[in-house]
Amino acid sequence: MLTVSRNHRVTQLAPDMAPVAGVEPGETFRVETAWPRGIGMRSLADPRPPRRLAITGPIAVRGAHPGDALRVTIHDIALPSWGKVWTAPWLGVLKDAELYERRLDIAGGRVDFAPGLSLPVRPMVGFVGVAPGSGSVECLAPGEHGGNMDCLTIGAGATVVLPVRVDDALLAIGDVHATMGEGEVIGISLEVGAEVTAAVEVARGAAPPCPMVETAAHVAVLITEPEFAAASERAVRTMAELLAARRRLAFADAYALVGLAGDLRICQNINPFGLTLRLEVSREVWGAA
Amino acid sequence: MLTVSRNHRVTQLAPDMAPVAGVEPGETFRVETAWPRGIGMRSLADPRPPRRLAITGPIAVRGAHPGDALRVTIHDIALPSWGKVWTAPWLGVLKDAELYERRLDIAGGRVDFAPGLSLPVRPMVGFVGVAPGSGSVECLAPGEHGGNMDCLTIGAGATVVLPVRVDDALLAIGDVHATMGEGEVIGISLEVGAEVTAAVEVARGAAPPCPMVETAAHVAVLITEPEFAAASERAVRTMAELLAARRRLAFADAYALVGLAGDLRICQNINPFGLTLRLEVSREVWGAA
Repeated sequence: MLTVSRNHRVTQLAPDMAPVAGVEPGETFRVETAWPRGIGMRSLADPRPPRRLAITGPIAVRGAHPGDALRVTIHDIALPSWGKVWTAPWLGVLKDAELYERRLDIAGGRVDFAPGLSLPVRPMVGFVGVAPGSGSVECLAPGEHGGNMDCLTIGAGATVVLPVRVDDALLAIGDVHATMGEGEVIGISLEVGAEVTAAVEVARGAAPPCPMVETAAHVAVLITEPEFAAASERAVRTMAELLAARRRLAFADAYALVGLAGDLRICQNINPFGLTLRLEVSREVWGAA
Repeated sequence: MLTVSRNHRVTQLAPDMAPVAGVEPGETFRVETAWPRGIGMRSLADPRPPRRLAITGPIAVRGAHPGDALRVTIHDIALPSWGKVWTAPWLGVLKDAELYERRLDIAGGRVDFAPGLSLPVRPMVGFVGVAPGSGSVECLAPGEHGGNMDCLTIGAGATVVLPVRVDDALLAIGDVHATMGEGEVIGISLEVGAEVTAAVEVARGAAPPCPMVETAAHVAVLITEPEFAAASERAVRTMAELLAARRRLAFADAYALVGLAGDLRICQNINPFGLTLRLEVSREVWGAA
């Protein structure tokens, strides 16, 4: 099986990057994701460090063209035996947070947080993204290209659907969390270097209107905007338009349906490029194709 | 069993209101909630109607005093055979929404939405609140008194914990939804007149720092603020303070724990008085008392 080394990492994605590997639709491959760096020895008097996110890739997906949908299915997330969590006043929702860093052990599907207090793992992939059509995007950013969405439901079994913008898509995968709370309120999670097993499919001309996530239970749109109200509005409108088309409903009915059956959830609310909301409906509401 | 009629309804709560009924701690009682009015025959050219919410009460809780915690456990929500859903441009996240109203049948635990498309019921109580210590609050508003929080997890089996502000608490209950999506993005849900069976307990001097919800699986704080960022910050700080005290953790550890194990969720994001966020942790993380 092709394994893409964690030594092949980027902090930006751009259309003209040279791929470090290539995969065919249907091929199963493995991606090693970067080890967490943490904040290390530092005091609040030190200069604030630049924020970068190192992601493995880019990987060429043979036969993917602009206008296609790239479907990335996560088959497995192999966690290591430890992860790092840290806090800083420039990272999370508390602007007076302490500088803090801990290494936590992971064993038997549990994270050892404190004596008598362990947490179940919730392995997920924080970053699944493709190159933009022009310019470049920081790997730290979530957006229309997918990227650093920090969506808890992107775990084993989930399929991320992204609009392809350039030939070969230029896929990158990284930022694995061993466990996290929804909303990622401290700005990071239990960050690990992991091995992600995935496969891709290309759906010709089927680019979605925004990044989406499909799981056994739900189908969701993922919307990133600088402000909560704009993200909420666009998530609702996008899902209502999709449901109107799929279920042959008037838009007014589809909007009411989103109100009754769509769960608006927070993927993350601390990214400097904007917050990411997920609006999800059950498979039953989404309906068969 | 005491039944409080839906004819006893208020649109505001204030400290000097005369109670319409009284209950003792431990007593099980029933509350009929108001039938939905809908928007009726109306055009966008008509004056925009005043927004009011009619809630059943107030109910005196004998022996409750300022500084106590009022624990309201919902034992059962008996749904009727129909509900109403409606949309309007002044209600939900889409400011260009149509005027729209439908009556939907409810039978066998399902809501009949369209041919081949039914939804499971998710019965919940949108409003559980007490009188403020001074002034008055609109029943439409969520806030420190509880009120119109539209929290999906306030269903059968849940306990709402509120800070008592006046003698006898002056409890009110209403705004039952037969089903809803989290976030209540259209501004209402499947609104019904229902029969809520509940019981109250009073915990002396144990007023929580904000409204809380306890279920079999989770313990949550409920925070209402005009803006998302402020709500998120206060929810995280409040939960971290509670966990630091309960689990004997340094605040920095408790903050990290909230990041790893606290799910920040949206109860509603369309109320003119502010949005309501729920930050919840598992019973395992919350720990035994």
